[in-house]
Parts: sequence; C-alpha cells; structure tokens
Amino acid sequence: MAQLQAQDLAQAVNDRMTDWQDPSFQQVMSSLVRHAHAFVQDVQLTPEEWMTAIQFLTATGKMCDEKRQEFILLSDTLGISMLVVAIEQARGAAAHTSKPGEERPTEATVLGPFYWEGAPELELGADIGAGNAGEPAYYHGRVTDTAGKPIANCALDVWSGDGEGLYDMQKGGDAGMRLRARFHTDADGGYRFWSIKPTFYPVPDDGPVGGMLHRMGRHPNRPGHMHMMLNAPGHERLITHLFVSDSPYLDSDAVFGVRNSLIVDFAAHPAGKAPDGRVMDKPFHTAHYDFRLVPTA
Amino acid sequence: MAQLQAQDLAQAVNDRMTDWQDPSFQQVMSSLVRHAHAFVQDVQLTPEEWMTAIQFLTATGKMCDEKRQEFILLSDTLGISMLVVAIEQARGAAAHTSKPGEERPTEATVLGPFYWEGAPELELGADIGAGNAGEPAYYHGRVTDTAGKPIANCALDVWSGDGEGLYDMQKGGDAGMRLRARFHTDADGGYRFWSIKPTFYPVPDDGPVGGMLHRMGRHPNRPGHMHMMLNAPGHERLITHLFVSDSPYLDSDAVFGVRNSLIVDFAAHPAGKAPDGRVMDKPFHTAHYDFRLVPTA
Repeated sequence: MAQLQAQDLAQAVNDRMTDWQDPSFQQVMSSLVRHAHAFVQDVQLTPEEWMTAIQFLTATGKMCDEKRQEFILLSDTLGISMLVVAIEQARGAAAHTSKPGEERPTEATVLGPFYWEGAPELELGADIGAGNAGEPAYYHGRVTDTAGKPIANCALDVWSGDGEGLYDMQKGGDAGMRLRARFHTDADGGYRFWSIKPTFYPVPDDGPVGGMLHRMGRHPNRPGHMHMMLNAPGHERLITHLFVSDSPYLDSDAVFGVRNSLIVDFAAHPAGKAPDGRVMDKPFHTAHYDFRLVPTA
Repeated sequence: MAQLQAQDLAQAVNDRMTDWQDPSFQQVMSSLVRHAHAFVQDVQLTPEEWMTAIQFLTATGKMCDEKRQEFILLSDTLGISMLVVAIEQARGAAAHTSKPGEERPTEATVLGPFYWEGAPELELGADIGAGNAGEPAYYHGRVTDTAGKPIANCALDVWSGDGEGLYDMQKGGDAGMRLRARFHTDADGGYRFWSIKPTFYPVPDDGPVGGMLHRMGRHPNRPGHMHMMLNAPGHERLITHLFVSDSPYLDSDAVFGVRNSLIVDFAAHPAGKAPDGRVMDKPFHTAHYDFRLVPTA
C-alpha cells in the first residue's frame, strides 16, 4: 500500500470519497478537508491544542438546547454567519437582471438566534412595545422593488430585545412572546408600527464561546438593532436589521453584522403628537427606513 | 465605521483580537479564522449547507459521553488526528540530534478512543488473551533507542479489541478491563506477552460521523491492529499500533493510521511448543517487532 506523508493526507481523505450522487456535498467536504489540513499544517497544531479543540467543540455541543444554539453563536462571533449571508445576497443579486435606473437592494445581515416563528399578525400602526422596558419608537417607511415599484401585502416580521437588551426568549419559560409581530404592507407598500428603541446587549457569554471571546480579548456586545424579515411573492426574502445610529458598539458588533446602509437615525421628539396622530404623554423616537427587494429570477 | 466586504471579514475578525497574553492561542485562532473563511468563500456555502453543518456539529456534541467521543471520531475519519500525530513525531525527531549510524525511530500512529488508564501491570510473558474470542498470538521483540542501545524497564501499554473486533469498553458496563496490560521491558529491552490476533472492526458508525461516512461512500472499518504505547524516562513517548499484515482494509483504514513500517507478519504455527516453551493445544501466531525510541533533547 502507498505510504502517506503528512502533506498527502488531505488528498488521501478526499480520494476515499466515492459516492458522487451528491456532487455539492462532495465539493463542500473536499474543500473542508483541504482547508482543515492546511490549517493544522500552518500552525503545526500540537496534540495538546488538538485536545483543547476537541474539548471545546464537545462543550459547545453540550451547551445547545431548544433555546440556545452555541454553534450558531460560534459561527456568528467568528464572522462566518455574516460571510454566508453576504455570499447568499450576492447570489440573489447576481441572478437578477437589473435594468437601468434600478437601485441597490437593501443589504441583508444575520438572522440571529432569537427569531421565533408564529408571532401575532397585527394591523399596521399597532404598538408591540407597550408594557416593555424601553423608550417608545415609531417605525415607518415603504417596501418597493429595486425599480421603485411598491410591494403591497409584503409580510414584515419584526423582533427585538427590550430597552434593557433582553429578548422574550431569555426571560424564562412563562414570559411568552413579546416585542414581536408580523405586519403586512398597505397598497402603496407602506408600513408603520410602534415598538421600543432597542439597546445594545451582550450575546450569551457564559458558555464556551464566551470563554473564547474572553481569551481573545473581545467584548460580547451587539449594537442596538430591530430585526426585520421581509417576505413577498416574486421577490427574494430579505433578513436584515435596522441599527440604532447612536448605539455603542456599532464599530465592534460581536457578530460583525453592521452594514453602513442599515444604520438609522432614531429622531428624538418631546411628548406630544406623533406622525400617525397618536398623542404621546412622554418623549418618543421616530425611525424611517425604506426597503428595496430583489425580484426573483 | 468601515464597511466590511465579504473578503475583508476574516481580517476584521482577527483585528478584533486584542489580548496577546497568549500568542500561540492568537496564532492558532487567526489561522483558523482565515482558513474557515477561505473554505466558505471557496465553496460559496449556502445558508442551507451552513445550517446542515450547525446541526451536524450539534448532534456530534450530543453523541459524546464518558465512553464515546464523536468529535475525536470526526477528527480521525477526516485524517486530522493522523496529521497531528505526524507533525508531533516530526517535531520530536527534529529536536533530536541524530548521530551517524542511527536508525529511524518507530513511526507513531493515532491513540484512538479505546485507551483506558489503569490497566493491570503484568509480568513479561503473561497471557491477556485467554478467555477472549480470537486466535492466540505471541508478541515479542526489543525496545532500543535510535542508536540501538537497549532500553530497560520501558513501560509498554498494550490494548486491542478481541477476535470479533470488540473492545472491552464496547461490551457494556460490567465487562471490565480485558485485553489490556502494562508490561516493562527486561534488562536487554526485551518484551514478550500473549494476547489474540486482532481483527478488523468498524469504528462506531451509528452516529453523525457514521452518517457522514455513509454519505461519502466510505466504509467505517479499521484493519486489525494491536495498540502499543511506550514510555521510558529520557525518551519521547511513542503511541503506535502493530498492524496485522493479512488483515483486510490495510489499504483503506477509516482513520488513515496505517504506516508501512508498522505492518507485521503474524506467522501461523500448528499446535505445539511456542517460542517461550509454552505448549499450545491449538494453532497460534507469533508477531515480532522491535521498537526504536527517540532520546529527548
């Protein structure tokens, strides 16, 4: 039999793959093996470092449960989730033949671990912030395609933590859904709702990934942001955030999700009449953002 | 703030590392991030593939317990464990200044998941195979350094599966230790003991890693081998196997551990007198191997 040298091992592993019924799986695995071996060679990984990695991965798996996904957190904090998002958005844009005068689609960012399917469907203008910690904020704007054509009846999922940086899912079993809803745009593509102005918060940092961040000398914080997911027939789905322009950590988001085009001014207003006619008895903010979706090919 | 493009994300992650109290951790993590991002870029990983990877890693973590380490199995089956072994052995050899006429040290291979600390210390010549499935085999040889000088009192840990390919650890809680022992070489570096002739067996393939192997079109089998670990003061520790020369799967060891220099003939003998004077009432094998250890720098 052929004697394998260290530098030939990756090729030997890949030569062993024989079931080509799924070419994309084979392609992904071959590349993974090549890069994993190149990494081990580059750093001349020691048996002790290898064992540390085995123990880290095991602990990361053990930390995962219904409400916590430590491997997604690992992917997020190493910038890998955002890279996958960027690649996916480029793929969607490339498939779309843009016409003269079209504008760039709204940028995507990470889904994050706090999306919860089945949030209540509410009428435009509803307030999902009432009763939660945080300063009131009125969100409004329009959804169009990249040519500027309004998209009516676009499903708009919104979710965020509260004014103290906590999501409902982090508040224990009985808290139920809070600060989430699904809206649908009006005939002109318009949307509007009330919630709170989100604040910065730390990603869960009491597990293996938190230990890694600590050892890297990194903080675990994300700047304040409102999650938005837009689904309209005939258009690419968009998963994104609106980032609060005066939030700390915009320059050092722990999951690398910030895009310049997603940073939004939350204009401060004294108590009084809001843009939708509601009379507020305390100060509030307004945040305006227009979304542009890519028509599917 | 600076807008990050996909190709800049890896650098952005690495720029975030600020705690240089542990330069080797930083070096390993920086390389890991670069290679992980290059992998995702190379294959243009889709969100669906990414989620499959997250779920695979999570299931792999969940499969780990006191007696099963699925991440080590993953590392083994992707050739990474063997690569780390090869790098470590090269490091030891490089640190040693060899003199003219010295021979190459015995090659190392993977530790595997079945080492069990605290096996009984037995006298040379003892039989650890009796009462277990498998054909009897007499193992003998000498331990020297690379200059040929005998190493007396070298601790020699040996372990293997039985003649049906099963290790004691796989036989349920009450089976206890079987087919394992620690011996010590005599004044001339000699060793000898009886066990069984090991047979090929599958690595545990009922978990996520087994699913991966199946999807790759790979079998899970390892050729028959006797594990050996040698520890002697003043010498590099050696972890290796002796592979059975007429075993199936020598060309396709599921963990890529085979080295040509570790393949040993198990000479077949009819019932009768064995080399150590023992009279065997059934056919048996003899396996001869001399080990050469590297003096520590």
